[in-house]
Order: sequence, then structure tokens, then C-alpha cells
Amino acid sequence: MRYTDKLRARIRATGSALCVGLDPRPDGGNTAALGRWLLRVAEETAPFAAAYKPNIAYFEAMGPPGLELLQGLLRDMPEDIPVILDAKRGDIGETQKYYAHACFERLGADAVTLNPFMGYDTLEPFLDAPGKGVYLLAVTSNPGAADIELRMLADGRPVYRLVADMVRRAQAERRAADAGMVVGLTNTSGALLEELPDAPLLIPGLGAQGGDLQALAGGRLTAPFVVNVSRGILYREPELSFADKARKYAGEIRRILTNPPSTP
Amino acid sequence: MRYTDKLRARIRATGSALCVGLDPRPDGGNTAALGRWLLRVAEETAPFAAAYKPNIAYFEAMGPPGLELLQGLLRDMPEDIPVILDAKRGDIGETQKYYAHACFERLGADAVTLNPFMGYDTLEPFLDAPGKGVYLLAVTSNPGAADIELRMLADGRPVYRLVADMVRRAQAERRAADAGMVVGLTNTSGALLEELPDAPLLIPGLGAQGGDLQALAGGRLTAPFVVNVSRGILYREPELSFADKARKYAGEIRRILTNPPSTP
Repeated sequence: MRYTDKLRARIRATGSALCVGLDPRPDGGNTAALGRWLLRVAEETAPFAAAYKPNIAYFEAMGPPGLELLQGLLRDMPEDIPVILDAKRGDIGETQKYYAHACFERLGADAVTLNPFMGYDTLEPFLDAPGKGVYLLAVTSNPGAADIELRMLADGRPVYRLVADMVRRAQAERRAADAGMVVGLTNTSGALLEELPDAPLLIPGLGAQGGDLQALAGGRLTAPFVVNVSRGILYREPELSFADKARKYAGEIRRILTNPPSTP
Repeated sequence: MRYTDKLRARIRATGSALCVGLDPRPDGGNTAALGRWLLRVAEETAPFAAAYKPNIAYFEAMGPPGLELLQGLLRDMPEDIPVILDAKRGDIGETQKYYAHACFERLGADAVTLNPFMGYDTLEPFLDAPGKGVYLLAVTSNPGAADIELRMLADGRPVYRLVADMVRRAQAERRAADAGMVVGLTNTSGALLEELPDAPLLIPGLGAQGGDLQALAGGRLTAPFVVNVSRGILYREPELSFADKARKYAGEIRRILTNPPSTP
């Protein structure tokens, strides 16, 4: 089964396009307790989770036990919920083979985020992985997206369109893995989405980062997309359960896409 | 002491601008044996090493024991040899804090390579680390550098010049860490080096990647720079000792810079 099919099946089963970000902030407690807490978040949000997205930075910050925690967490995840490892890796091809091994074989992620700055050849070891997915950073959700990603090229297109070209190339080459893009909610619009190839999107920026779902209205989103919330579920509104917060976000995402607000 | 001072002192002490890349390929053996082997490489090449550069990908590919191996290796390194952790990290600022903690606090690296694609704000948690160094990917050594890094912007400059602007900005803001750039030997020239700010350079591509040191001739290199060799020392010419290979590369680098070939 291709990654896109697995993701599409999960979105259909839950009626949700919410991706639950699993970014644990070590609070000085032990990693075993943190692992149990993360599993509880995953279990409670599962009915509303199209996918999970652990960011490996938070685990690396705990040292080797953090990486063991991540490994155990991915092993314990339900088989039918895709796990997108947010790693943003990028290196020369020879080295990327080792990152691909770490992400797909060691950790068993279904998909991974990649930084495409170093070029298409750096993506190939990941694109050769059957049944896996890659999300290339195109327009990220931070203000710094303006520094390179949104800059204009001599041909009149912004830099992120080069990333869109890489996705089209991977599609044309019928690579073993499915290629998609990361498009930050805070820096997108329906018009921007129209310029992108029909490919899976990972859309961060909802919740703590303040993105507005209306930015998606008007965008043609036929390939399966997910909207990620990390801090908004893990750390905000502690008076609500993780399940309640996940249900709320899943509902907001569903509403904006089924009833897009009419532009005046 | 600032990172640049530490690096400059080491280059002066050894008369070498060679950076020894420590990229262990797991051969199925145990990580303890691999650790002893890496320490032996480090010890034998030390007299010719301006810096060491472990690439974290090779350690991550071994799982948590690999990360422990890297941690132990950096702990056992001589205090006066700078260690550049080749990690090419890049994420939103909130997440970069955790990567910076992993690289500088957990692993104790002196400097780290960063991917600047997501913009200046993603570099700031690293730039705020006193005594540390960061090398931003500007022009990498792989063919894919042509895909984004070398593309022309609407203002007539190539994309990598935006990275040079980030280094100038960090210098103007007098950040706690020193900012430099990664410039691949295979994709550079004296003219290209002239366009860059006066900042530390990490120059990969010598040895297995086939870069020609003559590309550096004519470049103004006043800030301390290092030329990296990884596979060329670790895995090529097994009939030579690690020390002999390091001495050879250090000598080649010294010669091209003290006796640049006259262009006809």
C-alpha cells in the first residue's frame, strides 16, 4: 500500500484531517513517565487523529534515552494511524541514506519531513522507500519564510515553486515513496495552494502559532492533507481533555472545508 | 573565548586547515568497537587536525546506542580541537531551542552546521549560544546545489547570497555565536568566495567527492576556514595510516594557499 492510500483511508475512517503533533517538553521528570504521558495523549486523541507527528528535536534534546522513548512510542502506535516524523533532514545523498535508514527502518515512521534546500539529489534515498511518504518544506509557518522560501526568482516565481517542481518530478518519475509538501497555515492562501501540484500537504500553524483556517478556503485540496496542532493540544487549555481539544480542532478543520465562508 | 578564536588558535598550532570528518559506517560490528576505532582515527590524525566533523546521520542510523557513541566520542575529544557537529538542522525557533540544546549542551559540540532555508529567525537560538559557532549551508558540494542554492533571484543574485546576508546580519548584531558558511569545493571558485562576507568557512568536497583545491586559489580567506575530508581519510587508501592520509591532505591544503598556481 502506498503512503497516500494509508493516509486517505485513515482520514475517511475518522472524518478528520487533524494531525496531532507530539512534541514533549522535558520537564525534568523521567523519560519513562513522559513516554506514558505521550501514549495517553495518543490514545485519547486517536478517534480524531488522521496522523501523528512527533518532532524528533524534542526527543534528541533528552539525549539517547529520548531517542529510545521515540522508538518505543512509534512501536506502540496503532498500525492504522500514519506517523509523520518531523525531522526536516537534508544532506548529500550518501549521508541521506543513513538518515533514511534512521527514520524509516530504525524508527519505523510512515512519512518524514525533509528540507529540500540542497536539491533533488538529496531527496532520492527517501524517495526510493516503498510505501513511505516525504513532505518537502515549501512555505513554512514562521516569519522567516520570507527570507528565502517566499523570495522572487529571476523567472518571476517564488523560491517555493522550485520545491513544487521537485514534487512534480518525483510524481513523473513514479518514485516508490509519495512526495508532498509542508505549507504553513500562517503563510498560505487559496491562491497559493492553487499553484502547487496535487500532492499530500502537511499544514502546520494552527493553534499556538495562530494560523487561520480560512486561508485554506478556496484551495483545491484533492490529495489527502492534514492540518497539524501540537502545542494547542498538548499544552494549551489544560482544563480540557486531550480528546476534547482534538475533537474541537478536527471539527474546525472539517467545517472550513465543507462550508467555506463566502468571500464578500 | 569566541569560537573563531579557538579555531584560529588550533589552525596556528598545527599549521593545518584540515577538518577530519568522522562518519562511521556501521559494518554490523558493535558500537563499542566502532567507538574505539573512531577514537584511534581521532588520535592518529590529531597532529594534522584543525577540527573534527562528525556527521550525526551516521550515528542516528545506529539508533540510541549510536547517539551514546557520539556523546562519548565528543566527551573524549581533546579540549583544544574544535568539534563541528554536522547536523544541518533547521526548524521554527521554538523547536530550534531543543536542537540547540541537543547539539551544544547534550553533545557539547563547539560548532554546528545549520540549514538556513526556513529563514533567519530559525537560526537565532543557535546564534545566542556564547562561544559557539554555526555554519550555514550556502553552496553545498552536491550536484543538487544547482536546484535552489545557485538559482538566480529577481535581483540578479544567486540564492546563496541570501545566506551570506544572514551571516552579515549576525555579524552586525554582534551575536554571541560566530556565524560562518558551508561552501562546497566542487561548486566554488575564487570569484564566488569574493562575494561572501569575511566569515569562517567550512569547505567540504575534498577527497572522495573529487573537489579541486585550486578552486580556492584567488579567494580572500582571512577568517579561519577549514577544508573537510571524511571518506578520503576513513575509507580510501587503506594501505596508508590515518596519520599519513591526514598529513597528505593537510599538506595539499597548505600548498595551494601559500603557493597559489599562477593563472595563465
